[in-house]
Amino acid sequence: MTAGTKRKIVVSTIAEAEFYADGGFDDIIFASPMVKERISKRVISLATRLEAFHVMVDSVVGMQGVIDTPLDGDKKWNVFMEVDCGYGRTGCVWDSDDALMICRKAAAAEHVRFQGLYNHCGNTYVPDKDQKSQIQLTTVDRLVELKKRLEADGIPVPRFGCGSTPSCSRPINNMGVLTEFHPGNYIFYDYMQVLVGSCSMDDIAMKIVTTVISHKPEVGTLVVDCGWNCISQDGCERPKDTLPLGYTPIVDHPELRMRAMTQEIGKIEGNGEAIDYSKFPLGTRLYLYPHHSCATAGLQPKYYVHSGDKILDIWIPNRGW
Amino acid sequence: MTAGTKRKIVVSTIAEAEFYADGGFDDIIFASPMVKERISKRVISLATRLEAFHVMVDSVVGMQGVIDTPLDGDKKWNVFMEVDCGYGRTGCVWDSDDALMICRKAAAAEHVRFQGLYNHCGNTYVPDKDQKSQIQLTTVDRLVELKKRLEADGIPVPRFGCGSTPSCSRPINNMGVLTEFHPGNYIFYDYMQVLVGSCSMDDIAMKIVTTVISHKPEVGTLVVDCGWNCISQDGCERPKDTLPLGYTPIVDHPELRMRAMTQEIGKIEGNGEAIDYSKFPLGTRLYLYPHHSCATAGLQPKYYVHSGDKILDIWIPNRGW
Repeated sequence: MTAGTKRKIVVSTIAEAEFYADGGFDDIIFASPMVKERISKRVISLATRLEAFHVMVDSVVGMQGVIDTPLDGDKKWNVFMEVDCGYGRTGCVWDSDDALMICRKAAAAEHVRFQGLYNHCGNTYVPDKDQKSQIQLTTVDRLVELKKRLEADGIPVPRFGCGSTPSCSRPINNMGVLTEFHPGNYIFYDYMQVLVGSCSMDDIAMKIVTTVISHKPEVGTLVVDCGWNCISQDGCERPKDTLPLGYTPIVDHPELRMRAMTQEIGKIEGNGEAIDYSKFPLGTRLYLYPHHSCATAGLQPKYYVHSGDKILDIWIPNRGW
Repeated sequence: MTAGTKRKIVVSTIAEAEFYADGGFDDIIFASPMVKERISKRVISLATRLEAFHVMVDSVVGMQGVIDTPLDGDKKWNVFMEVDCGYGRTGCVWDSDDALMICRKAAAAEHVRFQGLYNHCGNTYVPDKDQKSQIQLTTVDRLVELKKRLEADGIPVPRFGCGSTPSCSRPINNMGVLTEFHPGNYIFYDYMQVLVGSCSMDDIAMKIVTTVISHKPEVGTLVVDCGWNCISQDGCERPKDTLPLGYTPIVDHPELRMRAMTQEIGKIEGNGEAIDYSKFPLGTRLYLYPHHSCATAGLQPKYYVHSGDKILDIWIPNRGW
C-alpha cells in the first residue's frame, strides 16, 4: 500500500500513530486538529521519539497551544495546517485571515517546523463524475492559491496534500501538483465506494461470512447471524432506491437484500421477488460486502487474510484512541 | 445485576458464553437459533463442560440438527424453543404446528433435556405505554397458551421466559407467571430507552468523554473528537423531531445537539439557537450519552468504572463471536 516505504502515512487516532510507530513507521500525520488540551504524554512521546510526527492545526488558538508546549531539547514540533477548501468539517477556511495568521505563527515559532498544508476533501463522496471533478479542481485550486499567498508572505510551503478515497481513486490532472495524497478506505474499498464510482464490486477486498439460522416465510425473511455489531449500521438509513443491492450486498446473490439488522441478527428479504427458501437451507453460508469497510473493519477482533479457501494469515487490528 | 448468583444468564454470542463460563457462570442460554452447521467444537465444549449450557432452536430442522449431534457420554443437550409471539425476528410462531413438532422432538430425544420456551419481545420498543402493555399482555398470553398446549400433549415445560429491556423495566402483573426474564440493555440504559419510557436520563450509566477540537462558525458547528467509531451511528437516521436532544444527548447541554458524525469526528450544532462559542473554548470537555449503549459499548476497548472523578476500575469488555 505504500510501495514498500514506511513513511508518509496519515492516521486518525493516537493509538494508530503508536501502532505504526511501533512497527517502524515514521513521517506520520495525525490528521485531526490539535489543541493544547490534546497534547498528552503520548503525543509528546510520539513527537519526541519519531523523526517526523506531524500534528495538524486549524485554528490560531490551536497553533498557539502547540507553541506554548515546547518539546524537550532541540526537538521541534512538525506542524501542518488543515485547510477547509469547501467541505466544511474541520480545517481553517482557505481564504480566511486566520489561515495566514496560523501559518505566520507556525513559521515564526522557534520550536516549530512548518510543514505545509493538508486538506480532507470529504465532499468528493458524490456519484456524479462531473460534480466530483469540479470539487477536485476547486480543492486543488484553493490549496494552490493559499500556497501562493503564503509564499508571497515569505512562508515556504514544502508540502501540500489532500486525502479522500473517491478523489484519489479517480484523480484529475491538476492533482499532479500536490506533493502527496492519502486515501484510506481504498485499502479495502466497499459498496459505498462502488456507489460513488471509486471502484467495482470485484475490487472490494473484505467480506463477512455469515450463516442462515432461521427461515421466517411468514414475514418474508431469512435470518443470518450477522447484525450491526459485526458489519455496522452505516448505510442502512439510506433510501432503498439509492442502494440497488441493499446497504450490504450479498455476494453472488443480487436476488437478496438486507432488510434490517439488530445486534447479532440480519434480516434478509427478496430483492424484488420473494425468497426461494429451498435455495438457502438453514446452515447455508452467505458472504456480505460491507457498506462502509472502515466501520466494519473497526468492529472485527481479527481479519482472516485469505487466498481463495486458504487462510494465509490472521491480522489483529489496532483499535481504541 | 444477578443479585449475586452466577446462574441464569443469557448471551448472544459464543464468545460471551465462553467469557462467562471462564468466569464461573453456569446455566447460560445462547439466545440465537441453533442449526447443525453452528455446532462447532466451541459449542460442544461449552455443552460438555458446563452443567447447563442451553441452546435455543426455532425450527424442526434445527432441532433435528441438535439431535443428530449427540454429546459424548451421558451428557445431554439442554434445549429451549424460541417462540415468536408477534415480533417476527426469529422464533417459531407460537400457534404453529411446527411449535408442537419441535417440542415433541425435543421431549422424545434421548440425548436432549427440553427446558422450555423462550421469547424476545423486541416489539416492546415503543414509547406508548398502553401499546407496550398490550404487547406484553399478548406475549405472555401466547407463551402461556403454548405452554398449556404442550402440557396437554404430555410435554412438561419447566421454564418459560422472555427478555427485552422495555418490557422488563416496566413489567406488567401477568409477567409474574414467567419463570424468568432477562433484560440486557438495562445494565447501562441509554437515550433510546429514555425515549421508550424504560428509564430517566439520570439512569443512564454510560458516558463518552470528548474534546472540542475545532470551531466552525461558518457552518454553525463545533467539532469534537468523537465520531461513529466511538459511539456508533445508531439513532442518527431518526427524524430530528423524534429526538429532542439529538441522537446522542450532550450531558448538561440541552442547547447543543449532534448534527452528524464521521469516523472520529462529531459535528455539534445549536439546538434551536446558534452556538455561543465563547462558552465552549477549544479543549472543552463534553460528555455524551449513548443513543444505544449496546452499540457504543461494543466499540470500546475499555470501560473506566468511576465514582465522580475517581476511577475505581478498568474493565476490558468481551468482543467478537
